Amino acid sequence: KPNASIAYGGRGMSFEADIDESNQFYLMKEKAVIHKKPTPIQIVQVDYPKRSAAVIKEAYFKQASTTDYNGVYKGRYIDFEAKETKNKTSFPLQNIHLHQVNHMRTVVRQNGICFLLIRFFYTQEVYLLDAPTLISFYDNQKERKSIKKADIETYGHMVHTGYQPFVDYLRTVDELYIK
Amino acid sequence: KPNASIAYGGRGMSFEADIDESNQFYLMKEKAVIHKKPTPIQIVQVDYPKRSAAVIKEAYFKQASTTDYNGVYKGRYIDFEAKETKNKTSFPLQNIHLHQVNHMRTVVRQNGICFLLIRFFYTQEVYLLDAPTLISFYDNQKERKSIKKADIETYGHMVHTGYQPFVDYLRTVDELYIK
Ligand SMILES: [Mg+2]
Ligand SMILES: [Mg+2]
Repeated sequence: KPNASIAYGGRGMSFEADIDESNQFYLMKEKAVIHKKPTPIQIVQVDYPKRSAAVIKEAYFKQASTTDYNGVYKGRYIDFEAKETKNKTSFPLQNIHLHQVNHMRTVVRQNGICFLLIRFFYTQEVYLLDAPTLISFYDNQKERKSIKKADIETYGHMVHTGYQPFVDYLRTVDELYIK
Repeated sequence: KPNASIAYGGRGMSFEADIDESNQFYLMKEKAVIHKKPTPIQIVQVDYPKRSAAVIKEAYFKQASTTDYNGVYKGRYIDFEAKETKNKTSFPLQNIHLHQVNHMRTVVRQNGICFLLIRFFYTQEVYLLDAPTLISFYDNQKERKSIKKADIETYGHMVHTGYQPFVDYLRTVDELYIK
């Protein structure tokens, strides 16, 4: 049902933009403080023109060593990565880097709330996959370097989407982690 | 006693570098997962040369809208800013931006652990100032746009410094917030 993409979040917005909007909503409602981390950049050359702002003239994108989002909700630490896929039947694991998985391991050990949000582009369905489940799929991948959508439906948790916020993942966090 | 700067952390390292080292130590010991956020950059122009990495050709530094460090310790959310001053008798409040103070307000409301670490360059003393205390000084500054060192000694908490980690702020966090 590709029409779902018109109803929800399908305003030509990226999944990350929809999550940023949700985080803004949570912040405004004093529900949680969760931000996207800036993209890590390796700066090589900076010019300092007189009487104006420093200009970065040469820099490169660095691979993120952690997940993209973190913050605080009801005193608990929240940490997650968000990924959208155009694949209809599975989530390709090359979307997640090893160092991100390893970061998730360390967060889980510290008793942080850690997960992956997956949006299937064509249906606009969003699932929350708890980090220990994701890590288990990641560590046990063999030839098939992906998680079947059926498995995400079984082991993941559907996230309510709508308006204000677009992606209400904290409702799912409440059910799963806070109670 | 300027010699303290030779004994502790005074290896020509910036305060941020010393904190990064401490965070690496905590991570390695599986004590906490705390990272410095990347510097926020406004990217204006990117070149995509054939067969090599994308090159950022024009970009500008953006002012940070949050604090520099955050992460998880014993399940709790940790959030702080670190500043060093060469001032001997006070900490100038222009070192902290209004939006950083406002970010701290939101974190405190969410029951996160939030504070400022101050290092006095000439003595290499490090103090932890709890966010509510900092906010109170910030909101009540009049002509004097600084916090007297004597007040930091009274209302702040001295942080143990040494080796491995250089700045053992989690020991102070334990005493103040965890118990
Ligand atoms: Mg990412
Ligand atoms: Mg800073």
